[in-house]
Amino acid sequence: MGEFELIRRFFAEAACARTGQGLVLGIGDDCALLELAPGEQLAVSTDSLVAGVHFPDPCDPFLLAQRALACAASDLAAMGAAPLGFSLALTLPAASADWLQGFSAGLEKMAAACDLRLIGGDTTRGPLNINITVFGRLPAGQALLRSGARPGDLLCVGGCLGDAAGALPYVLGQRPAIDSQVESLLAHYWTPAPQLALGQALRGRASAAQDISDGLLGDCAHIASASDVALVVELERVPLSQALLAVEPIDTARRHALSGGDDYVLLFCLPPEQLDALLAEGWPVQVIGRVEAGEGVHLRDAAGRPLSVPAAGFQHFSR
Amino acid sequence: MGEFELIRRFFAEAACARTGQGLVLGIGDDCALLELAPGEQLAVSTDSLVAGVHFPDPCDPFLLAQRALACAASDLAAMGAAPLGFSLALTLPAASADWLQGFSAGLEKMAAACDLRLIGGDTTRGPLNINITVFGRLPAGQALLRSGARPGDLLCVGGCLGDAAGALPYVLGQRPAIDSQVESLLAHYWTPAPQLALGQALRGRASAAQDISDGLLGDCAHIASASDVALVVELERVPLSQALLAVEPIDTARRHALSGGDDYVLLFCLPPEQLDALLAEGWPVQVIGRVEAGEGVHLRDAAGRPLSVPAAGFQHFSR
Repeated sequence: MGEFELIRRFFAEAACARTGQGLVLGIGDDCALLELAPGEQLAVSTDSLVAGVHFPDPCDPFLLAQRALACAASDLAAMGAAPLGFSLALTLPAASADWLQGFSAGLEKMAAACDLRLIGGDTTRGPLNINITVFGRLPAGQALLRSGARPGDLLCVGGCLGDAAGALPYVLGQRPAIDSQVESLLAHYWTPAPQLALGQALRGRASAAQDISDGLLGDCAHIASASDVALVVELERVPLSQALLAVEPIDTARRHALSGGDDYVLLFCLPPEQLDALLAEGWPVQVIGRVEAGEGVHLRDAAGRPLSVPAAGFQHFSR
Repeated sequence: MGEFELIRRFFAEAACARTGQGLVLGIGDDCALLELAPGEQLAVSTDSLVAGVHFPDPCDPFLLAQRALACAASDLAAMGAAPLGFSLALTLPAASADWLQGFSAGLEKMAAACDLRLIGGDTTRGPLNINITVFGRLPAGQALLRSGARPGDLLCVGGCLGDAAGALPYVLGQRPAIDSQVESLLAHYWTPAPQLALGQALRGRASAAQDISDGLLGDCAHIASASDVALVVELERVPLSQALLAVEPIDTARRHALSGGDDYVLLFCLPPEQLDALLAEGWPVQVIGRVEAGEGVHLRDAAGRPLSVPAAGFQHFSR
């Protein structure tokens, strides 16, 4: 099967039919063509997942495709962007029809869940590497940046943390996946749900936002640095899932939540007067601390006493 | 050196300073932000280059970066788009400062030559894989598509073909690079010049266009299929460089020109009345054949007699 036939068979058919809503021209020419409504800006982010680094190899291609697209789409959520589309640059060792069947089905499932259309791509031979570039739309000037946090803001997250890190021993086969709690953790690892709707709801309300991909504390450091403020995290307010607490002691669960990574949950700063309305609308907003004058990230107990901060989040090349 | 430090050190400094002209926000947040002028569309294309497949490994990172960006930018030229920016997703086995120094210098050189700014990226550890997504701007409805060729049009290319294929034995070290002719071939392989200005000049004039990356005949087949026409190539009109003819007999040179690939020269169809003005303006337009009713790609000699068509262009997974 040639490269062109392969692309046509698995990806092009579904993608080409869906122009409209910002997509003028999809797969099949030298470039895709996008357009914006007057007053809109385009948000763009690119992410690569590498076999053996970001996921175990081999693994189920149906799950892998969902995870790859969800990780990339989470960056759109973090900017408050409305989803538009994505391109896929897929490097794979061989053109296996079975593998591609599973991968394209997973891609289609997550694309539908995120309301993202495949707009173009590239397929090459080599060690398995999945690169996805996502595109979203935003009213000009309303993007959620990392740089707007102000002393007095509340520090918030969009849900429980640490589940993906808690799933890792099961993902890697180091422990048997025995019950529904573990299944819930595995779902957070393989099929995270990018908080695209929450991100859009935070536009004009949150002062700063990003998604947690490298671990809570490491990602807090990015906001603290970009906004030139200190972020205070109260350890006991960091939300932990029942599933994580069912398989790990609380100290391990908290370590996963603070620096485990792969959460793809939004982290954001909120002027206090914005909180009630968001909660009344039913958004999953959990206050975990506050923004202060100063610098860096500070972990405290419920009485406000400082706790030592464990090692920073995941960094490639640093270990 | 951590991932974030690495990115900052080699890529972010040059990139961040250059907002404006469509780039609202560059490297450093969850997404980059682009904007378009009223009536503009955005052209997007993504390309991955894999070590050992698209380039020899090891090779000079200064040249490799130039080649990677030029290959991607050529897709913008093929649509007639004006360059805006690019994102880089770089997967590399180790964070070598020497390698990154060379790579970032090469990237900067080609970015300046193509008037493209680095708008964002991702850096991960794994087998060397360079993914570049390019962004360009176009007046709405003026993109050069593959589907507009009409019987009676002239079939044209923007320059000599086959040089990159002719360079391959020297790139791979199978022959010693001895003279300036070989250096010229090597330059076409490592630092092709995407025909961005020619592409923009062809807007409103060419009926169809694409860039030649997989070999002339294979790429002609894409236009023939998309436009539902036959393309006739006259073998003796396909332009060959003095450098290629200095190192190869004419039959080999022609084989390289017809199916060698990696040319990154524009292929386009031109209503005959457009030719004189383009030539008068000094554009490198070479007529190599014509568009006829029918289907497929047909190779003919100067007397119009059919010649057999050699194997199609480069396809991953097909060999």
